[in-house]
Amino acid sequence: MAGYDTVSLLTDYGVVDEFVGVVKCVLRDLAPQVRVIDLTHGIEPFDVRGGALALARVIQYVPRGIVIAVVDPGVGTTRRAVAVEVAAGAGILLGPDNGLLAPAVAMAGGAERAVVLNKPEFHLEAPGATFAGRDVFAPVAAHLCNGVALEEVGELVDAATLLPGIVPISRSEGDEIVTEVLWVDRYGNAQLNISSDDIESMGDRVRLRFGTTVRTGVRASSFGAVGPGQLGVVTDSYGLVAVALDRSSAAMELGLRPGDLVYLREAGDAEAGTVTPVQLRR
Amino acid sequence: MAGYDTVSLLTDYGVVDEFVGVVKCVLRDLAPQVRVIDLTHGIEPFDVRGGALALARVIQYVPRGIVIAVVDPGVGTTRRAVAVEVAAGAGILLGPDNGLLAPAVAMAGGAERAVVLNKPEFHLEAPGATFAGRDVFAPVAAHLCNGVALEEVGELVDAATLLPGIVPISRSEGDEIVTEVLWVDRYGNAQLNISSDDIESMGDRVRLRFGTTVRTGVRASSFGAVGPGQLGVVTDSYGLVAVALDRSSAAMELGLRPGDLVYLREAGDAEAGTVTPVQLRR
Amino acid sequence: MAGYDTVSLLTDYGVVDEFVGVVKCVLRDLAPQVRVIDLTHGIEPFDVRGGALALARVIQYVPRGIVIAVVDPGVGTTRRAVAVEVAAGAGILLGPDNGLLAPAVAMAGGAERAVVLNKPEFHLEAPGATFAGRDVFAPVAAHLCNGVALEEVGELVDAATLLPGIVPISRSEGDEIVTEVLWVDRYGNAQLNISSDDIESMGDRVRLRFGTTVRTGVRASSFGAVGPGQLGVVTDSYGLVAVALDRSSAAMELGLRPGDLVYLREAGDAEAGTVTPVQLRR
Repeated sequence: MAGYDTVSLLTDYGVVDEFVGVVKCVLRDLAPQVRVIDLTHGIEPFDVRGGALALARVIQYVPRGIVIAVVDPGVGTTRRAVAVEVAAGAGILLGPDNGLLAPAVAMAGGAERAVVLNKPEFHLEAPGATFAGRDVFAPVAAHLCNGVALEEVGELVDAATLLPGIVPISRSEGDEIVTEVLWVDRYGNAQLNISSDDIESMGDRVRLRFGTTVRTGVRASSFGAVGPGQLGVVTDSYGLVAVALDRSSAAMELGLRPGDLVYLREAGDAEAGTVTPVQLRR
Repeated sequence: MAGYDTVSLLTDYGVVDEFVGVVKCVLRDLAPQVRVIDLTHGIEPFDVRGGALALARVIQYVPRGIVIAVVDPGVGTTRRAVAVEVAAGAGILLGPDNGLLAPAVAMAGGAERAVVLNKPEFHLEAPGATFAGRDVFAPVAAHLCNGVALEEVGELVDAATLLPGIVPISRSEGDEIVTEVLWVDRYGNAQLNISSDDIESMGDRVRLRFGTTVRTGVRASSFGAVGPGQLGVVTDSYGLVAVALDRSSAAMELGLRPGDLVYLREAGDAEAGTVTPVQLRR
Repeated sequence: MAGYDTVSLLTDYGVVDEFVGVVKCVLRDLAPQVRVIDLTHGIEPFDVRGGALALARVIQYVPRGIVIAVVDPGVGTTRRAVAVEVAAGAGILLGPDNGLLAPAVAMAGGAERAVVLNKPEFHLEAPGATFAGRDVFAPVAAHLCNGVALEEVGELVDAATLLPGIVPISRSEGDEIVTEVLWVDRYGNAQLNISSDDIESMGDRVRLRFGTTVRTGVRASSFGAVGPGQLGVVTDSYGLVAVALDRSSAAMELGLRPGDLVYLREAGDAEAGTVTPVQLRR
């Protein structure tokens, strides 16, 4: 089957301005048969790291088709616009070559082919160079959906030249595991860069240290299973460890933000019996 | 006609994280023919009451098909995930059995059949139990759209065992009607739980009392018909009474929030001639 | 080809309440074949000017079909609901006759025919008159999509009677061009109402004066080309001049808002060598 019938979008465009709407207009105009899925447009402006992590989380669920990902502070400069083919052609990711696509490409099995989108005949003419989503990525996606081959819409380049993404790795330091907050979601759960398997040996109570704060968290299988006043250490929907409170924002309560370091170890005997009561501010 | 071709979504997922996008990916993957309607994803996190009221407002407009409603603080605990059939099979509502669906089900004529979604062969496998929208509701909705029968995707249960919803009822107290703010919308209109018929006898001027505040409101047929500096008592688009200002937020001005009590009675002679001027803070 | 298969929406409904969802329900119910494009729902409540400018920006990209635009503080009063045909029937814009549609209609070549939507048989019955998007515009759009003729859904009126829109025009004053901020986008770029051609003669450095502030901006072809600590004067994606910082909000930094006046002239010799360093507050 040539072509694609789904385009999934992930951007930092937000939902207040008309940026997303214009991208959808271009797609509808050039490839009317295509369905569009909004993965999210809520990436913080210019936050390539946050966008890359979100794209890596969702990529395993994205259906066959094109992905347009745009967090692109360098738009209009020398940064390259690229298309990266993965999974035997089941997916093509379009975006700036700034590391945004890299973790998702890796999750999808690695880049098979890549092109630089330097063929203006597949772009829209525009009076300014600052809206590549509208002028480059949307029209190229439409042409790919319509059956134009990847090697037609750009110039093949060695996938090894694509800018790598930076995914923070946890590490051991003394008796602690040093983790990093990857993501704070709408509910205030702070996702760490370790899987729940990584702390299996720590038992039911985990000591968390960050900044000048030390807390004891209790392992729980869901947010609702965290007791009142307890700090939960929950296996989230991606299998990673999240710091959570029941029906309240752990991140706000604890002052945790993406990028913050959190040191974990098994809670000692002295700590084991005392679960730090959390003062809810709601 | 077996199956359905529309899935409508109402959640507290917000539009910043990728939760909604992932649900749509699962639907697109398993039931590519289906169209998705976003009713709203702006319910406050964990606000089952607000979600239930919003769903009850919209249900009369929702086209034939599946509704997925998720405001689910108990996800992963013992709360049940259910599917409730209404209107001779014209609609099936999926969601947690926590009262969220109940008012909409009642508005749609009551539950005809209900199943508990306890058949994992219709779910997605997942490393954690915290994202039922992705792992339970979306795949079950897709299977129902594809023609799988309700009694196949779960175990039939007595609809009388479903958790009821709580819809606040107004009451009389002395010469006042005691009402409650159901909803504050984007424009700051505060919807009360009485229809405009309920205050027909009060005439053109209505005394509103809440907290330590007393104001006189003027009946108006639209927000724009409320005079400058006047507080309006408007019949809103659902036929309920809303407290409103013209081009300004009544709720912010008056400090009204969902759940607040507002006492109404006819404005007396002394009050009838004086419309409280409202100090606009814009 | 009779009828239309795309309806594009631009409103001030926001994405928190269910207003947009209900409009889509009505469209899906009455014209299930239609695809909906959300241009944006993020116009500030009641901001007719902001909505008109956004619609004028996007209209050139909107595909053949119906546009519903709603920023409608006068809903339910004597303001008219209208449908305006443009581009030999390629587009019909529906909305309140309050100036919201006018700049986009002009961009699309001017109104060819216009009707007032005063035929209730094409509307939904409703208990209140405050939600024209649901009760008037959506059902009329659905009927137009289904092939009902424009002159059927309303009464033809002279397009010259439509309320004009107000698009601010720049002007010269002494050696300065007096411009106005049209739009501040998510990234904090402040779009002015002049094209980059209008300041071509000013050279690479432009003096900006607004309120009591004077700054020197540097011409740049993209946001990323603005140097650290520099204030950029960038040709944006619509060919207009935007005041910008690299990876930071110029509007927040400078206190610029839509409607503010900005006076531009060529930076003099004394100013030419000094680019005002901007203190970033991030």
